[in-house]
Amino acid sequence: MQRVKLNESAAAAEPQPVLIVGSVGYDDIETPFNKDTRILGGSASYACLASSYFAPTRMVAVVGNDFEPSDRARLDDHGIDTAGLQVDESGPTFTWSGKYLENFNERETLDIQLNVFEKFEPVLPASQKDSRYVLLGNIHPGLQSHVLDQLDSDDAFVAVDTIDLWITIAKPEFLDLLKRVDFLVINDSESELLTGESNIIKAGAALRALGPDKVVIKKGAHGAYFFYEGGLFALPAYPVTELRDPTGAGDTFLGAVMGYLAACDKRDIPTIKQALLYGTAVASLTVEAFSCNRLESGGAETIEKRVEELRAMISL
Amino acid sequence: MQRVKLNESAAAAEPQPVLIVGSVGYDDIETPFNKDTRILGGSASYACLASSYFAPTRMVAVVGNDFEPSDRARLDDHGIDTAGLQVDESGPTFTWSGKYLENFNERETLDIQLNVFEKFEPVLPASQKDSRYVLLGNIHPGLQSHVLDQLDSDDAFVAVDTIDLWITIAKPEFLDLLKRVDFLVINDSESELLTGESNIIKAGAALRALGPDKVVIKKGAHGAYFFYEGGLFALPAYPVTELRDPTGAGDTFLGAVMGYLAACDKRDIPTIKQALLYGTAVASLTVEAFSCNRLESGGAETIEKRVEELRAMISL
Repeated sequence: MQRVKLNESAAAAEPQPVLIVGSVGYDDIETPFNKDTRILGGSASYACLASSYFAPTRMVAVVGNDFEPSDRARLDDHGIDTAGLQVDESGPTFTWSGKYLENFNERETLDIQLNVFEKFEPVLPASQKDSRYVLLGNIHPGLQSHVLDQLDSDDAFVAVDTIDLWITIAKPEFLDLLKRVDFLVINDSESELLTGESNIIKAGAALRALGPDKVVIKKGAHGAYFFYEGGLFALPAYPVTELRDPTGAGDTFLGAVMGYLAACDKRDIPTIKQALLYGTAVASLTVEAFSCNRLESGGAETIEKRVEELRAMISL
Repeated sequence: MQRVKLNESAAAAEPQPVLIVGSVGYDDIETPFNKDTRILGGSASYACLASSYFAPTRMVAVVGNDFEPSDRARLDDHGIDTAGLQVDESGPTFTWSGKYLENFNERETLDIQLNVFEKFEPVLPASQKDSRYVLLGNIHPGLQSHVLDQLDSDDAFVAVDTIDLWITIAKPEFLDLLKRVDFLVINDSESELLTGESNIIKAGAALRALGPDKVVIKKGAHGAYFFYEGGLFALPAYPVTELRDPTGAGDTFLGAVMGYLAACDKRDIPTIKQALLYGTAVASLTVEAFSCNRLESGGAETIEKRVEELRAMISL
């Protein structure tokens, strides 16, 4: 697989690895246009494939006794380091079944089977404890904290994603976690659920006050806001005309953002802004097909081209 | 009143006048926070006050026998040329009564009294027929066309605004009008109503195919898209934290955009992009108070400062 080509001035001499913890699962998905069953999904799958376009990527997750060799091959083909991917032979892989309603504005969860995920405890391989770019993908905040406990890097840049479920049932743990992370990426409804603030500008400030110095609030097809010390960046969405399945778009976005930062080995504001454009471009691939299909095959050149389009969209 | 200071390289040697046709009325408005009655409103009031921050502004509209001298003084204070403002002594001024629901996401019209507006025929003073920047504010598309018929300028840049009502009850007239204008500004729900297209990117292309070379689709608090030959510009909204009354925001936006273009006497794409930032900044004043109150008093310096903030929001 070919990596995305970065500007010479942006790229680090040596791209740093990105450590990503999250779920790997099999999804059954129904959209207004189509349906498919038992397709590779989960926050770690999307985020790792996205990150792998930019930097060496380490996956920490669990699969069950039914994980297909062909799906492992998909990770291998993207050069993803699966030393931290546990195989639990005691049961099947996590599954999720969901349905998108008209216009993709709403999503209904039809069924969740945690399976081997129920007993999952992420364990970092000794060789990965020095990771300096860490993405805590959407899983229970207690497990996300458990990953941080195992890190022994003293300048890790830690990004966290979540979903409304954890804000509802594990809010204290999530608030504890927020005090320990650098970068929170959340969508607008989750942000309102967490802060009680419907005005997105006020919500951004409220989220930063909870711990993370840098916050992105995603607005789906309306792009995102990036809040940082003394500033605000308005990120456009990529102009997708063939939306097919939004599952994994958020995981893809953050995976690519962290991959880009690790490839540059920088976390300053101008680099993060560039990273957000790359994240947006890669996420646009994910939503154009079911599962990771288009994300996997989209290719570095398409990503580079879409980032140029995004740059033009905000050029005066 | 002090005009907004433009970059020396942008400003024309002589700012051109903007001709604006639309409604002037008295509104009764109720929001989740407040209510007020008999406040100055109407598409021409907002658009003219906004335009007057940039360029000489000519108002074409009608008022009735109850139009308050104090409201005329508000127009005079902004240097608005009211030679084309008819006073119809046969009845009262147009009134509108509306209510905003929670979060301002929806608006209900409680009452409309057309009054003198029912017989209104816009008449351009002879001295204004050479206007080269023309804003057809929200009124019946037949009346908008009637204004175009009276122009004798051969390089007028014509912008048009509308509302869902005219798309519903006067679609053929509106489609005829679109073939004669350069610049359409419309919101996302109106755009879907007119084109049948819910994807905003496809809708932008569909609207351009109807006539106007340049199209802006507004998305409220999510900013706007500007569609032009071979390009797309994503305009952020100004980060308003104290939304009080969105009435007139669209009229203000387009009034300021046209005022800026006339002050530069240019209609090229880079100038229009700058104009859209100014329109956004001025519209942010309108929504921070009832009626034209904050728009009137906001001042050139506040507008200049907000444009700088908007530029920073899209700077990489």
